[in-house]
Amino acid sequence: MNFTLNVLGTASALPTTERYPSAQVLDVRGRLFMIDCGEGAQMQIRRAKVSFLKIEHICLSHIHGDHIFGIFGLLSTMGMFGRSSVLNIYAPKSFAPVLEFFMAHFGDGVKYEINHVILEMSEPEIVYENRTVELLAFPLNHRVETFGFIIREKMPPYNVRKEAIAKYGLSVAEIGRLKGGEDVVREEDVIPLAEAAYLPYVPRSYAYCSDTAPFPELAQWIKGVSLLYHEATYPADMEEMAQKNFHSTTLQAAKVALEAGVGRLLVGHYSSRFPSVDFFLDELRTVFPDTDLAHDGDVVEIPYLRNV
Amino acid sequence: MNFTLNVLGTASALPTTERYPSAQVLDVRGRLFMIDCGEGAQMQIRRAKVSFLKIEHICLSHIHGDHIFGIFGLLSTMGMFGRSSVLNIYAPKSFAPVLEFFMAHFGDGVKYEINHVILEMSEPEIVYENRTVELLAFPLNHRVETFGFIIREKMPPYNVRKEAIAKYGLSVAEIGRLKGGEDVVREEDVIPLAEAAYLPYVPRSYAYCSDTAPFPELAQWIKGVSLLYHEATYPADMEEMAQKNFHSTTLQAAKVALEAGVGRLLVGHYSSRFPSVDFFLDELRTVFPDTDLAHDGDVVEIPYLRNV
Repeated sequence: MNFTLNVLGTASALPTTERYPSAQVLDVRGRLFMIDCGEGAQMQIRRAKVSFLKIEHICLSHIHGDHIFGIFGLLSTMGMFGRSSVLNIYAPKSFAPVLEFFMAHFGDGVKYEINHVILEMSEPEIVYENRTVELLAFPLNHRVETFGFIIREKMPPYNVRKEAIAKYGLSVAEIGRLKGGEDVVREEDVIPLAEAAYLPYVPRSYAYCSDTAPFPELAQWIKGVSLLYHEATYPADMEEMAQKNFHSTTLQAAKVALEAGVGRLLVGHYSSRFPSVDFFLDELRTVFPDTDLAHDGDVVEIPYLRNV
Repeated sequence: MNFTLNVLGTASALPTTERYPSAQVLDVRGRLFMIDCGEGAQMQIRRAKVSFLKIEHICLSHIHGDHIFGIFGLLSTMGMFGRSSVLNIYAPKSFAPVLEFFMAHFGDGVKYEINHVILEMSEPEIVYENRTVELLAFPLNHRVETFGFIIREKMPPYNVRKEAIAKYGLSVAEIGRLKGGEDVVREEDVIPLAEAAYLPYVPRSYAYCSDTAPFPELAQWIKGVSLLYHEATYPADMEEMAQKNFHSTTLQAAKVALEAGVGRLLVGHYSSRFPSVDFFLDELRTVFPDTDLAHDGDVVEIPYLRNV
């Protein structure tokens, strides 16, 4: 019951010898979601031993080179591996001419369907779902049209406690309501959901927010996610530069995490000015203690928490 | 007086964890020539500690992804470093729409001039020269329009031996003819160049032949180069596959080197079928002993040989 993030690249606009540009792969119960695809992502995918052909979804936050220059090589390589299954790419409309260019000049080996889902929402919307997982996109605040993503396990049906069935003589219909997450309302009293049922596991969720400057709605939109990845391009004393470039500082990222009440915060997309970003951590943890710095090659697991 | 090759990538179509796609930088007396630009080349440039802004010329052999997917990131990064000097790109005409696409969608930061020199010759032609170095291009035999390159030091003026000036009482005009590499022809006899003069140094030359299947003219066109880089995508027993894909085997590459009488042979562009290509070396050296396998990160120097 995986919920595992592979961090492939943490550089911002200029890659360094230690950092590839932005790219990640999230494994949710064996279904792979790629988020952003900077140059060299396909090499990092190999190093992380992630399977190319199992990537079903690619989320592209925006059409800046450091987030998409790896897409050409990746789509080509998938073709060379004989991919036949559909690939869904969730991206702003500005991706359409990029895909068109690629197919026209390098698309000969691409025998699989590429489904470009155009992102144009003004608040969080589901853009993909299956029985257990859903993918949402929402606008961010950057220089060009940019979107953040939430990938989350759906709420499972509640399990009804045997003791409650016995104690209250629950009917089939009432059991159904509890499974659906509702209290049981009788004429004479109410049987609260919290007493009669429990979630079999805590649904896990991941939010990706890069690139973005702060904006008021964000914390609400990503409220309570298990893991938040938020760009922290600059340290706290470079707020003016961050504002000019529609990016965030460490403190701004941490404040979002705090306000949203997320489980854990991971930051990345570091400016190449800083060969070491260790000093970012103190700044971040003064505001949000459960923060880590992402590094290329990191594997972050959100464990499956079963209720018994 | 450098003549130094930095090998940045030796993979063929599919990069691996150990090999980036094709890219090289040749340093000739401080002037930098890049040859091919596969994905990730800009990271490899940093690792090799080559200066981005000193690359004046980029030679692109053909418009296949594994030879050019790194160009977008490289051109962007040069822009971000504030490049102002002209960049010359020698490439087939099929590069024009690629450059146009890049400039239209990602060209905002590119404030320097990019001069695309279209390659369309049917035999070796000089496409660039300065006082001491010349760059030639010539067609190769591949699936799409593809060109090889020679970068060489020009013949320097000969030095006339003092003893010969004295012995023969050489006139200014006769000294001039010897400097220009000609015998001195007098009514009564001939003073041979070889006796009266000498080259101050052996001009060095490098030829790059990838991707290509064998063809009759090649050996003549690259005759006598100091260092030849020739693709050896396949081992000797995969000649049929090589022919099908317009590539070369080890034996074919070695035969070209032998027939052309080159100084040294370097091979690369290895099929990803072979995590190790060590066994290629025996095959190569049975035909051309002075062969080496190129690996990512190799630095190959052709030393400056002064005559005294």
